[in-house]
Amino acid sequence: MRLSEQSQHIAVEKGQLLFVHSSVADRFFIIFNGWIKLFRETLDGAQAVIDVLTTGHFFGEASIFQEGVYPYSAEAAESSELLSLPLSLLKTEIETNPKLAMAMLSSIAQQGSKQNRELEHRTLQNAPQRIGCFILRLADQQQSGPTAVHLPYDKNLVAARLGMQAETFSRALSKLKQETGININGATIEMNDISQLRDYSCSACSSEFPCKDLTEKSRYSS
Amino acid sequence: MRLSEQSQHIAVEKGQLLFVHSSVADRFFIIFNGWIKLFRETLDGAQAVIDVLTTGHFFGEASIFQEGVYPYSAEAAESSELLSLPLSLLKTEIETNPKLAMAMLSSIAQQGSKQNRELEHRTLQNAPQRIGCFILRLADQQQSGPTAVHLPYDKNLVAARLGMQAETFSRALSKLKQETGININGATIEMNDISQLRDYSCSACSSEFPCKDLTEKSRYSS
Repeated sequence: MRLSEQSQHIAVEKGQLLFVHSSVADRFFIIFNGWIKLFRETLDGAQAVIDVLTTGHFFGEASIFQEGVYPYSAEAAESSELLSLPLSLLKTEIETNPKLAMAMLSSIAQQGSKQNRELEHRTLQNAPQRIGCFILRLADQQQSGPTAVHLPYDKNLVAARLGMQAETFSRALSKLKQETGININGATIEMNDISQLRDYSCSACSSEFPCKDLTEKSRYSS
Repeated sequence: MRLSEQSQHIAVEKGQLLFVHSSVADRFFIIFNGWIKLFRETLDGAQAVIDVLTTGHFFGEASIFQEGVYPYSAEAAESSELLSLPLSLLKTEIETNPKLAMAMLSSIAQQGSKQNRELEHRTLQNAPQRIGCFILRLADQQQSGPTAVHLPYDKNLVAARLGMQAETFSRALSKLKQETGININGATIEMNDISQLRDYSCSACSSEFPCKDLTEKSRYSS
């Protein structure tokens, strides 16, 4: 395997930068464990979080189609372990290995689908509904009865991931509590039944509940 | 060419539906001319516009990676001419033709990059800046001095494309006029120099002006 020979296993601490937006891209990454934040910044430091990814996801790979520069910055949101691979090899492999090409296409298409959903929700859901949706996607959607969900990374990053200012997030969370009876205990969210959240959030979504895209593999992907 | 043998040339009127979200996908489309709106709807009819595409763009192709259903609805926003092709053939072609696979990857990656930018702008730009950005992307960005830009489709759709309610759009447009001195005459926007718009809108964007992704080919793509 040419790819695996040139792979590097790396460990990064929370806050460590992997690459910055517009820098020359030579490697892409696969996440073994942890959380990686993809983001972009304006000159005056305002930050937009594009995505927060975890185990099994890869990032930086789209650079090979974009003049060889990274289309976002990447930073460890928690301590993480990654596999780093050269982009040049990826390109050769895709050109000569149709199965890999299809797998890449499939992965990139799923990313696109996720962003479609994100854009839809920014348009149709209000802030409390967006938080409700985020929590529902972390929960076991098949379960009934009392359940608890743990936020996978800190609240400020959840807010940023949902495109909200900290104050907006805080107000929206209070409203969500009031509307659905959920209980928030640090990073843990408890509820009597996910149906309360579902009724509240999913009414402003074009997809049916349970969310079809949530397989075991991609479970914590958004 | 197996693909071209099974292609169909079709003409659609404004408002005509091509396919609906979640229906079984058997064909994808390439736009010859006109404008196609991609959108999703909740059960109670609220609509989120995912994209509005024109000449040279294709859509529906990502269905082959998504359990064979369309991830959005598609409707003609203006009278349009399209080429329709079977998805089954596309899949076979990709698996046996690495060049086509790379072209598809490249196209899907560019779509992803566009959606990244969109999400960034929804987070960092206010409503008048988003409209300013939309206008700037229609203008000849190399030009200086007095210039005019024509909105490619009606204002309600521009509003929806930017994720705004009609009233928000209207208020934001007034504010943009006031801040940048542009003049609006029906569907035509006149300005003394695009630098006024640029200074106003691009300060809340992570990319440099002129927009690198705007080649002749993709010029009117967003």
